[in-house]
Amino acid sequence: MTPPADHSISRRRLLGTAGATGLALGVAGGAAGYASAPSDDRPALTGVGADRVMFHGKHQAGISTPVQARGHLAAFDLVSGAGRREAANLLRRWSATAERLTAGEAASAGGHDTGIALDAGPSSLTVTFGFGHGFFTRAGLEKLRPDALDPLPEFSSDHLDAKRGNGDLWVQIGANDALVAFHALRALQKDAAGAATVRWQMNGFNRSPGATARPMTTRNLMGQIDGTDNPAPADKDFDQRIFVPSDGDPAWMAGGSYAVVRRIRMLLDQWEKLPLKDQENVIGRRKSDGAPLTGGTETTGPKLDRTGPDGDLVIPLNAHSRITRPDQNGGAAMLRRPFSFHDGFDADGVPDAGLLFIAWQADPLRGFVPVQRKLDRGDALSEFIRHESSGLFAVPGGAAKGEYVGQRLLES
Amino acid sequence: MTPPADHSISRRRLLGTAGATGLALGVAGGAAGYASAPSDDRPALTGVGADRVMFHGKHQAGISTPVQARGHLAAFDLVSGAGRREAANLLRRWSATAERLTAGEAASAGGHDTGIALDAGPSSLTVTFGFGHGFFTRAGLEKLRPDALDPLPEFSSDHLDAKRGNGDLWVQIGANDALVAFHALRALQKDAAGAATVRWQMNGFNRSPGATARPMTTRNLMGQIDGTDNPAPADKDFDQRIFVPSDGDPAWMAGGSYAVVRRIRMLLDQWEKLPLKDQENVIGRRKSDGAPLTGGTETTGPKLDRTGPDGDLVIPLNAHSRITRPDQNGGAAMLRRPFSFHDGFDADGVPDAGLLFIAWQADPLRGFVPVQRKLDRGDALSEFIRHESSGLFAVPGGAAKGEYVGQRLLES
Repeated sequence: MTPPADHSISRRRLLGTAGATGLALGVAGGAAGYASAPSDDRPALTGVGADRVMFHGKHQAGISTPVQARGHLAAFDLVSGAGRREAANLLRRWSATAERLTAGEAASAGGHDTGIALDAGPSSLTVTFGFGHGFFTRAGLEKLRPDALDPLPEFSSDHLDAKRGNGDLWVQIGANDALVAFHALRALQKDAAGAATVRWQMNGFNRSPGATARPMTTRNLMGQIDGTDNPAPADKDFDQRIFVPSDGDPAWMAGGSYAVVRRIRMLLDQWEKLPLKDQENVIGRRKSDGAPLTGGTETTGPKLDRTGPDGDLVIPLNAHSRITRPDQNGGAAMLRRPFSFHDGFDADGVPDAGLLFIAWQADPLRGFVPVQRKLDRGDALSEFIRHESSGLFAVPGGAAKGEYVGQRLLES
Repeated sequence: MTPPADHSISRRRLLGTAGATGLALGVAGGAAGYASAPSDDRPALTGVGADRVMFHGKHQAGISTPVQARGHLAAFDLVSGAGRREAANLLRRWSATAERLTAGEAASAGGHDTGIALDAGPSSLTVTFGFGHGFFTRAGLEKLRPDALDPLPEFSSDHLDAKRGNGDLWVQIGANDALVAFHALRALQKDAAGAATVRWQMNGFNRSPGATARPMTTRNLMGQIDGTDNPAPADKDFDQRIFVPSDGDPAWMAGGSYAVVRRIRMLLDQWEKLPLKDQENVIGRRKSDGAPLTGGTETTGPKLDRTGPDGDLVIPLNAHSRITRPDQNGGAAMLRRPFSFHDGFDADGVPDAGLLFIAWQADPLRGFVPVQRKLDRGDALSEFIRHESSGLFAVPGGAAKGEYVGQRLLES
């Protein structure tokens, strides 16, 4: 899915050639085109590299930003002996690095830059930081730990590997160039030296800008259009559903959001053996264009009560798209902003592939949890997927100029 | 590195908006813009998705084609009992699938298409097929096995994992969209059912089109510009160096090439600790712009005899770029067309990352072997890399319309 941006602006748009990317770009406060870096002798960028997403803002970038072609997720644990002070210094370094890199500049901390992103523009790079449950214990900040970080309930479909879940600190990197993304990952890892070490790390991808003329949503590795029912930033209640309000609790989370991160393995061999019609019944939508089985286009509302000639519901009771609908879950809504993953094949030729599911919400107990509980009780899709890891992170609001991400927590 | 194309043409070029991609696109025989697929109700593509590389031609696509943003390599072994006939049928299926997918159409073999590439254009997809040493034994075709497939010599820097090397059949997939590439990988795997199983599979990436304004070469994960000294299709002796001549031996390899494929792990932690000046001495070129340490620009020839104020050679004797120069290796030349790889971090946070080195030549004994022998004796870069797997494949010439790749071997 590709939600409209609230952070980004395209230089191509400024140049009047927007539309070539297939991205629905919006323009809002604080945005600016990619400007030449200091002492810059690089030729002017006009392509996908020129797109820049501002680091500073009310919310962190990488939440309602259009999803990028390449993503890295990483969790870090504080090293033994490191606490609040070391974490504050680390978030200060990380924020400075993220500010520089998202502007297309070189990293400066920890010696010379690796040079991996030299010649490339910002390429819509975003870096997003979060805190996990364990962080607050290790940093002596239990009193400021949000209740919303309480461990998620167990679901019967879970096959979770704890080593690839949770973690003290979480970083989400997205960019439309894989080398720009890797450059950021290495720079942030270097910044962490002495304070935190990598607990787990995952790589993902989405459609490249311009690879499709479809404006709104992308497909996943099941071939399914994904994200149709996502809340849109233009929705009246978007902010209320996705972001912690300015008078929220705890205060340091104002403007922040909670990320549920799950590595969802797709059992593609089984899925692909299923006839098209059966696949469509599992989802409740047509594969070709994402329209509900009751007709229309991708954005047409489904007729949930309609029956076919056989008297059965056209959209089955256990269809994935029926179960996940906000109006079937007390209004529960989350912004899904996933990456696909593919980490090769096992010895039997089975692909280790699926979805790095990332869902954003103001409160997991009113977003992910009720929907997943319901899916757990009877989702037709469940036999084709396996949740292999899970993380829950408190992602603070964006940093203002001169601030670093998490400062309101770490200096409170 | 991004060699000019001899296969591809950009629809954007036709529309007069070329240059936006940062690719140096050439136009030569047999090329055509992406045309609407039959019964197509998709909106017209104008972005990176519209670029199409022709499947048919004198040479297979994916050799002198500009390198793509995403790559999959896979080796297959024939199943027990499968021989020449099954291989011929498989190559017929594979060629038909490659022809369809590179035109932006759906796969047809093995049931319904997975739909992963629906809505996307061809995105410069290429699929390239090769045969390994063991294939000829299993298919009863020893007499047609090229001498050039004799096992490569061992090098002292090798740490090879046989399970990730060689194989009966080799497939190289490249595309500027990761879902288009994965779609092709799955379709080809499905085509192989009953005839061959995956032996090993690797994923790689390069710069996205348009992420950089640099026209010719890309960087690797060491931050180094890579491919400067590559033969260029415009060179007088390019074809002679890269492709088997039309009267070559064996006859079925006319128009073909040999691919040396190596997973080269980069020891990035050690490399990145090296001061910039030392990195530049290891390579013999400036990191910023790839110019030789004796001055000029990336394409300036190095002054190999020049000494500095201290009397030492400016470009050290063991500098990587000095050792690999054709004029230091009896004219040996190969076309390097690699992908970078990053398969996560190990438990100590060490990245499993480096280069999927793919080198093309008319004869490995006059391309890869002499250069690698020389590197093996004293390349300053060798302490920062590790060759972890190796494959050598005979890649036949391209198929004409109505032919399949390898037909001249399998029906000879």
